[in-house]
Amino acid sequence: MPHAIEDAPALEPGTLRVTPLGGIGEIGRNMAVFEFDGKLLIVDCGVLFPEEHQPGVDLILPDFSPIRDRLDDVVGVVLTHGHEDHIGAVPYLLRLRADIPLIGSQLTLALIEAKLKEHRISPYTLAVKEGQRERLAPFDLEFVAVNHSIPDALAVAIRTPAGLVLHTGDFKMDQLPLDGRITDLRAFARLGEEGVDLFMTDSTNADVPGFTPVEREIGNVLESVIAKAPRRVIVASFSSHVHRVQQVLDAAHANGRRVALLGRSMVRNMGIAAELGYLKVPEGILIDHRKAADLPDDRIVYMSTGSQGEPMAVLARMANLEHQVEIGEGDTVILASSLIPGNENAVYRVINGLTALGANVVHKGNARVHVSGHAAAGELLYCYNIVRPKNVMPVHGEARHLVANQRLAIETGIPVENTVLAENGTVIDLKDGVIRVVGQLDLGEVYVDGSTVGEITDADLKDRRILAEEGFISIFVAVDAQTGKVVVGPEIHARGFAPDDSVFDDVIPQLVRALSEAAENGTRDSHAYSQIVRRTVGRWVNTQHRRRPMIVPVVVIA
Amino acid sequence: MPHAIEDAPALEPGTLRVTPLGGIGEIGRNMAVFEFDGKLLIVDCGVLFPEEHQPGVDLILPDFSPIRDRLDDVVGVVLTHGHEDHIGAVPYLLRLRADIPLIGSQLTLALIEAKLKEHRISPYTLAVKEGQRERLAPFDLEFVAVNHSIPDALAVAIRTPAGLVLHTGDFKMDQLPLDGRITDLRAFARLGEEGVDLFMTDSTNADVPGFTPVEREIGNVLESVIAKAPRRVIVASFSSHVHRVQQVLDAAHANGRRVALLGRSMVRNMGIAAELGYLKVPEGILIDHRKAADLPDDRIVYMSTGSQGEPMAVLARMANLEHQVEIGEGDTVILASSLIPGNENAVYRVINGLTALGANVVHKGNARVHVSGHAAAGELLYCYNIVRPKNVMPVHGEARHLVANQRLAIETGIPVENTVLAENGTVIDLKDGVIRVVGQLDLGEVYVDGSTVGEITDADLKDRRILAEEGFISIFVAVDAQTGKVVVGPEIHARGFAPDDSVFDDVIPQLVRALSEAAENGTRDSHAYSQIVRRTVGRWVNTQHRRRPMIVPVVVIA
Repeated sequence: MPHAIEDAPALEPGTLRVTPLGGIGEIGRNMAVFEFDGKLLIVDCGVLFPEEHQPGVDLILPDFSPIRDRLDDVVGVVLTHGHEDHIGAVPYLLRLRADIPLIGSQLTLALIEAKLKEHRISPYTLAVKEGQRERLAPFDLEFVAVNHSIPDALAVAIRTPAGLVLHTGDFKMDQLPLDGRITDLRAFARLGEEGVDLFMTDSTNADVPGFTPVEREIGNVLESVIAKAPRRVIVASFSSHVHRVQQVLDAAHANGRRVALLGRSMVRNMGIAAELGYLKVPEGILIDHRKAADLPDDRIVYMSTGSQGEPMAVLARMANLEHQVEIGEGDTVILASSLIPGNENAVYRVINGLTALGANVVHKGNARVHVSGHAAAGELLYCYNIVRPKNVMPVHGEARHLVANQRLAIETGIPVENTVLAENGTVIDLKDGVIRVVGQLDLGEVYVDGSTVGEITDADLKDRRILAEEGFISIFVAVDAQTGKVVVGPEIHARGFAPDDSVFDDVIPQLVRALSEAAENGTRDSHAYSQIVRRTVGRWVNTQHRRRPMIVPVVVIA
Repeated sequence: MPHAIEDAPALEPGTLRVTPLGGIGEIGRNMAVFEFDGKLLIVDCGVLFPEEHQPGVDLILPDFSPIRDRLDDVVGVVLTHGHEDHIGAVPYLLRLRADIPLIGSQLTLALIEAKLKEHRISPYTLAVKEGQRERLAPFDLEFVAVNHSIPDALAVAIRTPAGLVLHTGDFKMDQLPLDGRITDLRAFARLGEEGVDLFMTDSTNADVPGFTPVEREIGNVLESVIAKAPRRVIVASFSSHVHRVQQVLDAAHANGRRVALLGRSMVRNMGIAAELGYLKVPEGILIDHRKAADLPDDRIVYMSTGSQGEPMAVLARMANLEHQVEIGEGDTVILASSLIPGNENAVYRVINGLTALGANVVHKGNARVHVSGHAAAGELLYCYNIVRPKNVMPVHGEARHLVANQRLAIETGIPVENTVLAENGTVIDLKDGVIRVVGQLDLGEVYVDGSTVGEITDADLKDRRILAEEGFISIFVAVDAQTGKVVVGPEIHARGFAPDDSVFDDVIPQLVRALSEAAENGTRDSHAYSQIVRRTVGRWVNTQHRRRPMIVPVVVIA
């Protein structure tokens, strides 16, 4: 699958070019660029969350470099739904050109507008509904309802003279969704009849056999857990999962309990969802968390963030007794959420902490309190058979997901040569129902750290990993420019290496000797002295301690 | 559950004292100390593997401090089986007193002896078999066969005048194990008839409902995967899992394939297991990996290490095309192993890499190629009902496992007050069938890093985490002792913070100004100058970059 880097040829007239800038080979920062007749359309613009080998990184953005000089050609950004991995990078794109139109459903736009407000950006928006058709010349867009773990998600059909592309966004096919808004397979069928030249499909759960269970099942489990709970109930989930929160409200209501929302994003998102009518709040059920403590323990449900074990979120603070809600014997905590890979230790730390305080912790390992938001293999097979696309490009997934999705397409009869396993930056041209890989761009990771965007490089992260594993030793020496003699230092300091700096008493005489030998030999160059310092201290630390800290010599010729 | 730190009272005559030093509240570094009549018996002495918030740490040892001054009183260390979390800290204990006798089964002792050889220690050993009784006065020991994911595991019954303790070690109750050596429930029943005063039981899978499936099932899966594999097969598993390797050998044999062992620990452990007769190697099936490449692709199985995604192990190197076995289209890779929490991202990176190279990757997520080595809830219920102990102390597990195990004991009718949820360092006295928590020792983490043991502290790890998240800025200044004027510097360097040091051109004038003001005000003290440096640079970096790197001022009064 890995491609050599090669420039794509100039785009021929009548050809549609598709270039994913993110989301291929990874779960996150979804972004695809469509080009036709000199104009660009973007579908999604999300962020990726860092892994443990990217310490200190807040977010990872798609690499915008292929479109940086062509921002004026962008006719709009279609946002398929309001999750961070689909909208989170919009503020960074709009910093480059603030008036790029954003197209999406009402809830999606409300969520991105709330986010942009924090960045002090007022975007141009175009709200669309399922079934609606909009022309952003030369692209003709049609929006199709899809069901996902956030309301109001859309697939988008993109028509150009080069053919018809259907992009699912994230989706699943819950046949009994809470809001009755199912993935519109009749529209998928109609588009299939018309002829889908390229089908871009969500791969996240392509390697999960069978079908994603219905969201509705969770409601019954929540209700019975809450009914049996002797004292307080705390439910943690994703702060954008309107239907999950809806089920918690309903289960609390059925049990005569009131609900307090905890966590800034939970309060904000549910405010938006309630105002727009996506969340139906039973009359008088919500209570301010400051007043909730006055209720009897068996009359309250706290709905909180922190289901991924995030150390600063409500749930982790509860587990450490650092939250006003002090967990104790008889409390019930429900993690109504998935366990995102990489978060296991953090989540188990929280579960252990809560358990040790006496709470009964219910999670997807011991009860059906979560279902996925993505179509499993069985659902994808339905899709392929209903759409019968000419060509397929799996999107949204790591290599294992993309390959599993490709196999499903092939099993339904799509020839392997009509499927494309892309990478970020793969350039694919579509014309007359034929797809061709015509290039591979060299894209990087764009790290957000504090207020900096793209300044931290992979080399900095490598330094950070070394610092984390081994700490550092810094050695300062000032050398007389004339005599080469040490006039200040050597001053040796270390962090993350040893309990105190007295361990260096051992190496200082060696170092002084090596430096004075160099001076006698006529060395007056700071680089040469730095090398001597690095070598002497490096050897000593490796032999004496079998360690390899970062060694930072600072030599000044005074 | 958290206890205040309190010294235990002097041990009364006729009382048995039990103090776990590790393995309670964590999976790893299992170690329990039994004291009677001035003598100490240790059961297990293992290591714990670090988590992501302990960067650079190689191993974590139990804190030996409570026994450090009493090593001459130790009559022996019983090793229940040969896994690292039960034997890995033995070399560090024997460094303190080399002639402490080690007691264990033949395979267990062979594995610890191989490890001790690397540390240049020849231990005193006493090999025991199930059913055997040995007196290490004042302790009377009886060994009982248990089934686990390594052969030759033992439970131990410890008799003293204070009562009978039964410690299971790690175990499960596979009723059809490959070697026919089942957990000896008849012995458990006999001990129960005699009266077990304290039952210490493996909690690892206490929160898993039902029963651990039989190891034998995996053989069929392996055989059918290998039978269908068009080209090479690579199986990765734990290097001590003799029965898993046995099944791979048998499945390869049945399919007319030969087997090459890859990875130092795999080769070493299987050599030991074969020599002692625990691994039955079909005649002529093993082949040196250097010769394996000459065989046709469909005649070879590689048996390797690296199932946890360890970056330097065979499998990860294969996934990065850094191994002589170059993975390609049509190869089959089987991860016949668990996925230890915290390793998910590493393992998925390996799976993605192998998939992208064209391999078909079979793992426990898509096939029954692994079963656990620990008793699930259903098995533990059998145990409690067969032994009917007076008192129960769950061991080997995090808080959530210990609590789940305690609940199982209570469900079988053991009164809650006869169960003890301990922590590491909890001191429990047993006399006349009654247990009492009499103290709580203040134990720490003992980190092994390179050749250092216990030198790296939690403060160093905190520094490392800051360095990892943010990098550091070091600022050197030499100040004239008389005038307070800066004579060398300020020299500012950073790592893990920004692409180059030119960003500091911005802050140097501010810093020079602040230092000269201090000089004019008569400051001559290096600590005061350091504070000025820290404050000036810290404020600047926080305002300008919204970051909080470690700031390391070095001020010399020259």
